[in-house]
Amino acid sequence: MNMDELTVLRKKLDEVNLELLALINERGKLVQEIGEVKKKQGTKRFDPVRERDMLNVISDNNKGPFQDATLQHLFKEIFKASLELQEDDMHKALLV
Amino acid sequence: MNMDELTVLRKKLDEVNLELLALINERGKLVQEIGEVKKKQGTKRFDPVRERDMLNVISDNNKGPFQDATLQHLFKEIFKASLELQEDDMHKALLV
Repeated sequence: MNMDELTVLRKKLDEVNLELLALINERGKLVQEIGEVKKKQGTKRFDPVRERDMLNVISDNNKGPFQDATLQHLFKEIFKASLELQEDDMHKALLV
Repeated sequence: MNMDELTVLRKKLDEVNLELLALINERGKLVQEIGEVKKKQGTKRFDPVRERDMLNVISDNNKGPFQDATLQHLFKEIFKASLELQEDDMHKALLV
């Protein structure tokens, strides 16, 4: 009985993992597009004010169970990875 | 024209951020439930084999633009935060 319960929960977790994967990659594509627009405009890629705003929205909308601090940490990691993605694109463009 | 393009992309990014927030918290709740079941069973919370399996599934299903290594890093951070969530629950239970 308990074993089944664990199997069901793990199956749900696997589904959530795949949804997260798709969403993180969707976010990556959007950040790449934003990088392209900023490149055309000659605007800096890293915008600390915009990043702070996004983190505030995360905290304002957090219903738990994760604490704000934990979510801010996770999102900062996602932001950092996204910025690196833009830098990779920049680097590739320079190599062309 | 370009400014509007940036505004539209940022609006989409804000939506994806909120979807990610909801999904990470949904994952947190599932992990808490799994923690409860494991507690009843007397099983260890941390299962490195299960974690490795989940990371392999992430890589197998990765369609980019993020590289496997980046996604593995992000998911490891999410796993770590989830484990801490179970530990918090454990700690609270001990205080009751």
